[in-house]
Amino acid sequence: FIYNHQLRVRYGDTDQMGYVYYGNYPYYYEQARAEAIRSLGFTYKQLEDAGTIMPITRMNIKYIQPAFYDEMLTIKVIIPQLPGRVIIFKYEVFNEKNELINEGENHLIFMDKEHKRIVSAPQVLINKLKPYFKS
Amino acid sequence: FIYNHQLRVRYGDTDQMGYVYYGNYPYYYEQARAEAIRSLGFTYKQLEDAGTIMPITRMNIKYIQPAFYDEMLTIKVIIPQLPGRVIIFKYEVFNEKNELINEGENHLIFMDKEHKRIVSAPQVLINKLKPYFKS
Amino acid sequence: FIYNHQLRVRYGDTDQMGYVYYGNYPYYYEQARAEAIRSLGFTYKQLEDAGTIMPITRMNIKYIQPAFYDEMLTIKVIIPQLPGRVIIFKYEVFNEKNELINEGENHLIFMDKEHKRIVSAPQVLINKLKPYFKS
Amino acid sequence: FIYNHQLRVRYGDTDQMGYVYYGNYPYYYEQARAEAIRSLGFTYKQLEDAGTIMPITRMNIKYIQPAFYDEMLTIKVIIPQLPGRVIIFKYEVFNEKNELINEGENHLIFMDKEHKRIVSAPQVLINKLKPYFKS
Repeated sequence: FIYNHQLRVRYGDTDQMGYVYYGNYPYYYEQARAEAIRSLGFTYKQLEDAGTIMPITRMNIKYIQPAFYDEMLTIKVIIPQLPGRVIIFKYEVFNEKNELINEGENHLIFMDKEHKRIVSAPQVLINKLKPYFKS
Repeated sequence: FIYNHQLRVRYGDTDQMGYVYYGNYPYYYEQARAEAIRSLGFTYKQLEDAGTIMPITRMNIKYIQPAFYDEMLTIKVIIPQLPGRVIIFKYEVFNEKNELINEGENHLIFMDKEHKRIVSAPQVLINKLKPYFKS
Repeated sequence: FIYNHQLRVRYGDTDQMGYVYYGNYPYYYEQARAEAIRSLGFTYKQLEDAGTIMPITRMNIKYIQPAFYDEMLTIKVIIPQLPGRVIIFKYEVFNEKNELINEGENHLIFMDKEHKRIVSAPQVLINKLKPYFKS
Repeated sequence: FIYNHQLRVRYGDTDQMGYVYYGNYPYYYEQARAEAIRSLGFTYKQLEDAGTIMPITRMNIKYIQPAFYDEMLTIKVIIPQLPGRVIIFKYEVFNEKNELINEGENHLIFMDKEHKRIVSAPQVLINKLKPYFKS
């Protein structure tokens, strides 16, 4: 499963180096991840309203080139495999010249919102993703 | 009631102008406000745990001079009057040269966390503040 | 001059009250302001590359109702008068039910990037805005 | 080389899950890193003023347990080896119960601020760190 999300760098995202501050990428990833899920026909908000939260357990980022103010970035979101108790999102960030400037990865777990217990991926999510992983 | 809080400007708080981005001051105010309340002998967290949340209703900021990376700022927090349904916090931000670089003000209301209804200031807060407003 | 910008609330913009944290609105305003300028046919980035920076000198915000995660907000950007040494931006933020949830205002000054001296509004900006203020 | 930095979780750092949003840890790391360098007797700001910037090239984070509003976190900063062209910082974040809640790592490179060329670690930094790595 692959989805491309575009977002524009805000002034407040830069630092005095003139680059996008390294702490903004997790926010960019989240935005792209939410839109990727929305493209499947439902939303992370619906998952959460239905009682499932998805805390992050891992993040790896490789900063290849800086991003700059006002650039329109394209974030390619990849779900490499059907989720079980963990869902993996991979990201590739491209600038306007289509250069790969950043790569990242997140692991999220599924958790029962009320009792804060780890659960399996909601069936609705599995159903939406299955068609992309048919062999 | 007056309280001074010190905090150091983070790299991520700057923007490509080399100044502290204007959107960071609300975060600085919140930090200073929380410490001001703590100095009274309890915490905003305790208020919230006891069922009162305090949403912001107003903010006014006057940006006088820029703040820079790594500066130790002093934020003077002033509660100008005993709170009723609204509590007012005023802030004066000074840099290391003791120059007034920023002035701000917040209005917060007291709200019942569960039913989201406006309530009066909790008695515990009034009691702690009263000594400062004796005539 | 009026311009409408839409943006979606990120998860990271919320706080434990379940509302958009009050410190995010300046970032939203900036984003909307940049798009308003872009709609005139040039960009804030171009102004800055040409040597003019625009530090904020004032901000006033009235928080009317909370905004929530995943809402698509509409930010109406108003430039009420032709800029001189100061440019004023007013903002009205509407939620998906078209309720006015937030109102704000910024004053920005024009500054020579190199010498950090206050200057008048660049002629290119005046020229683009003039048609909107014809009597 | 090991240094412990303490910081308090701000309200604005939480999200509607009630946890510290995962995107705040890079800011926490930066704050702790800056204080670790300061403890050596100079500052990152001085390095930058002297012409060396230190962009991030890698970040890995393991989120073990959530952090909560108003907690005083302790961030243990470890520089595991003398820097060459890259400096590695490792972080261990502990909550008030002294539980390890988060682990992270950053790689930073040294860059000539003016020409944006990769350089070796400044001698001043090497000199300050050497005593910690004596065999």
